[in-house]
Amino acid sequence: MLSTTPRTTLGRSKNRGLTSREDLYAVLDAGLVCHLGVVVDGFPMVVPTGYGRIGDTLYVHGSTGATSLRNADEVCVTVTHLDGVVLARSAFNHSLNYRCAMVYGRVRRVSGEEHLAGLRAITEQLAPGQWDASRAPTGKELAATTVLALSLAEASVKVRQGPPIDDEEDYELPIWAGVLPLHQVWGAPEPDPAMTGDLPVPAHIASRATPVR
Amino acid sequence: MLSTTPRTTLGRSKNRGLTSREDLYAVLDAGLVCHLGVVVDGFPMVVPTGYGRIGDTLYVHGSTGATSLRNADEVCVTVTHLDGVVLARSAFNHSLNYRCAMVYGRVRRVSGEEHLAGLRAITEQLAPGQWDASRAPTGKELAATTVLALSLAEASVKVRQGPPIDDEEDYELPIWAGVLPLHQVWGAPEPDPAMTGDLPVPAHIASRATPVR
Repeated sequence: MLSTTPRTTLGRSKNRGLTSREDLYAVLDAGLVCHLGVVVDGFPMVVPTGYGRIGDTLYVHGSTGATSLRNADEVCVTVTHLDGVVLARSAFNHSLNYRCAMVYGRVRRVSGEEHLAGLRAITEQLAPGQWDASRAPTGKELAATTVLALSLAEASVKVRQGPPIDDEEDYELPIWAGVLPLHQVWGAPEPDPAMTGDLPVPAHIASRATPVR
Repeated sequence: MLSTTPRTTLGRSKNRGLTSREDLYAVLDAGLVCHLGVVVDGFPMVVPTGYGRIGDTLYVHGSTGATSLRNADEVCVTVTHLDGVVLARSAFNHSLNYRCAMVYGRVRRVSGEEHLAGLRAITEQLAPGQWDASRAPTGKELAATTVLALSLAEASVKVRQGPPIDDEEDYELPIWAGVLPLHQVWGAPEPDPAMTGDLPVPAHIASRATPVR
């Protein structure tokens, strides 16, 4: 079960809340970037960034010089999938179909084995199979990269799917209603023009060039 | 030209920064949801939400009871488009192709004509043509909806496109490198099963069922 702290207890649309840890993993594991929220000098800052998950820990990374990472202490990490636009009969009842996970907590700066494991998880989240296929990080590269760990202890999941929900009296209006679905799809791999030699696209990359879902 | 305040001046990857107002409009106008960052009791909160733009003002909306909107004062609004995963020879140089706009400022609660114009812009951003096709909001519905306005005065745009950039000595490694492009595409409209009568899909909806870009 997910947490029930004040900030992870849904105030509105409670019917959209999912409460199992598997639901949280499913939303997180299906994503490519999160939006990381931090407070900088009292003001909010929201940056998109890659992430990875190992068990109940989320990892994000970036340059040691990044303002967002240097200021990351208490954070909110949000992962959102858009699944469609919900077209209702009334302007008021328009909505989106989506899956969204929000994780709150204080980040921990990691080092050593966990630093490397975190980077691996982040790379594999973007491109499964790439970590082992790539040249491993040097000590200098590792030193230039901050990895932050965030416990998944305090998190909420909200999902909306399905047709519009209009007011009872609006269902008879002669207005088309329904959902326009939205999908993320991979295109064909584009080889780097600077590639020396004639290397085939590796199977772990070629096999992704189909709809994500 | 965009602003050059400390928080909109890029600290890193300056070569990815775009500086014209047209670049900002292009990123914002191509999106469906933003990630709205607010500070609640000193902690960051990041929620995905619809938005619309009229000139140099961005509008977001939500229930008058929403925690994020009740706490919105100084905010950061981020709109991100993912265009592909950049597969480099080294793990370190993996990246994403993306377009991202960040807007900072203090929100203004709007009312009257601007309230309605803001809602129209938000609906039209999600589904062009839907405002006029839908049943207009009642006074009660308007009263239940908060609309916030945010000036686009303080904003930054960051874009990365193209193949990986590896270290000089890595180009000779026998590792495939390139980009796996990512696209958002609309699916076929799904009529609401509760629709009375046999209404055709309106042209402004049917015409979208092609790739977004």
